[in-house]
Amino acid sequence: MTTDAKILSALRQNPGGVSGAELAGQLGISRAAVWSRIEELRKVGFEIEADPHFGYRLRGEPDALLADDLLARLGKTKVIGRDIRVFGQTTSTNDVVEKLARDGVPEGVVVFAESQTRGRGRLGRKWMSPPRKGLWFSLLLRPAMRPQQTTQLTVASATALRRAILIHTNLNAEIKWPNDILIAGRKVAGILTELSAELDRVRHVIPGIGIDVNQDPSDFPPELRKLATSLRIEAGDKVSRAALAADVLRELDREYSRVCAGNFSEISEEWVEHCETIGRDVTVQIGDRKIRGRAESLDDEGALVLRTEHGRLQRITGGDVSVEK
Amino acid sequence: MTTDAKILSALRQNPGGVSGAELAGQLGISRAAVWSRIEELRKVGFEIEADPHFGYRLRGEPDALLADDLLARLGKTKVIGRDIRVFGQTTSTNDVVEKLARDGVPEGVVVFAESQTRGRGRLGRKWMSPPRKGLWFSLLLRPAMRPQQTTQLTVASATALRRAILIHTNLNAEIKWPNDILIAGRKVAGILTELSAELDRVRHVIPGIGIDVNQDPSDFPPELRKLATSLRIEAGDKVSRAALAADVLRELDREYSRVCAGNFSEISEEWVEHCETIGRDVTVQIGDRKIRGRAESLDDEGALVLRTEHGRLQRITGGDVSVEK
Repeated sequence: MTTDAKILSALRQNPGGVSGAELAGQLGISRAAVWSRIEELRKVGFEIEADPHFGYRLRGEPDALLADDLLARLGKTKVIGRDIRVFGQTTSTNDVVEKLARDGVPEGVVVFAESQTRGRGRLGRKWMSPPRKGLWFSLLLRPAMRPQQTTQLTVASATALRRAILIHTNLNAEIKWPNDILIAGRKVAGILTELSAELDRVRHVIPGIGIDVNQDPSDFPPELRKLATSLRIEAGDKVSRAALAADVLRELDREYSRVCAGNFSEISEEWVEHCETIGRDVTVQIGDRKIRGRAESLDDEGALVLRTEHGRLQRITGGDVSVEK
Repeated sequence: MTTDAKILSALRQNPGGVSGAELAGQLGISRAAVWSRIEELRKVGFEIEADPHFGYRLRGEPDALLADDLLARLGKTKVIGRDIRVFGQTTSTNDVVEKLARDGVPEGVVVFAESQTRGRGRLGRKWMSPPRKGLWFSLLLRPAMRPQQTTQLTVASATALRRAILIHTNLNAEIKWPNDILIAGRKVAGILTELSAELDRVRHVIPGIGIDVNQDPSDFPPELRKLATSLRIEAGDKVSRAALAADVLRELDREYSRVCAGNFSEISEEWVEHCETIGRDVTVQIGDRKIRGRAESLDDEGALVLRTEHGRLQRITGGDVSVEK
């Protein structure tokens, strides 16, 4: 953790105030250095009160993603978020992480952008990522798995995302196979998993995640208002993006550890419990082809197992799934 | 085709000679321009005789890969080799093509290097690529397929490679699943297929191919002499790398068209006929795990289908296969 991250962490742990001397002691720096870091934090929007009796107190936070702040909120994780980078604007955070991957950066790095000019969803679709309204970020993973198994990571990410939303907002989201998070039938988050691989060995996987956090209905184009929603719309209150980001990364780290330990079946159980797709009659559109059937289960590679209308079992690894009403 | 490629093509079509006036007419340029291009070709090593009676005649060729020369030899193809680039030295031609892919270069581009400093084989192994001894190159493909189907491209590449070697040297090579070409049990060429994909959609595939062409036994380290060979060792004569390259690209183009047209079963039949693995008892090493069985067939995604010692059918999509003696 950087010094700024440690200061923010100490301020949050001591809402009643912490003195400059205490901070200096904890961090092993001078009181003048503490003061100078506090000044820098104020410049990026943190309201830090300096009281002669109580010491420094955190009174307000900027609505901005700051790497030091995210590191401080997240605390210690196994892999994900040990390195966090925040960009004001990028084409797509997946592009940034792809470059880092090729430069040999270790797994676990997370790249956020306040906005993306070319955010993308599955199947080449555009993903809208307006400034400061949501969380748009990508992770670099280097799991020892075969390309076929990477659907496990989408399933694990969806499970983590659903749980973090519940922890943070008390909203009960559902998962739509393979990569969407819905609240009351409307999409609130999506995951695009990109991979680079040899035939039988993954080199790296980049899950890209978009969460609609603080949009008002008017922030969505009219044609999307029935299909998309935000946590703010559903919770009725503004959500701290930074706090949510920390919760999401913590849950992602936990799920990734479970995948790497070979415990996909645990994740899969939780996933199935909260999946709107399993047990329903669905239509899968794959290119020009339509397959109808009942979604029966998730297999151990993360594929959806369908009992087709002809009674055969069929593994679905892609395409668009829609639940029949 | 460039002007130089057209001149080389005309010289090869007219071994008895072609006049400057004829060349100028065919190419729509002045005789002075023809003369100046001929001078340039001489500089890179082509021996071009200018005879007052017969005109220009091609008497000798450099042992070098030149993009114009390769384009001229290859002629018209559907996809592969419409754009050819030759580097003196690279880390790995796959790296160069990967960069081109990200820059949006259309599929079909082929990158050769006279030598690679970090040529790689499957499973992170090193691939030796000494200067001017072999063909080290990579292709950019953008097929509309799912990641699981890309093994088809390795199978198609191996089939093309085997056929080109037969056409060019009359040597009967065998294929070892999934990516090796052997002559009399020793490896003469290999294919490393790398892919970039979403979960259910390939963005691009880069087959990297290495062919040991003109090595003498002493060019191989002692520990490899029983395992590796070159076309020169097997044919007993030096092989024109440029002519072989054109034959290989032509066959690759043909096989790629068959894959894209959905005719993988045709390729698969030819592959099985020349595969040393099918019908044999094999051991597959996947990480720490060993699977024993009889290699029965190739399935429609290019996986090896094994009848295990316990009688079950198992699809093999990776690992090291060795044939039991």
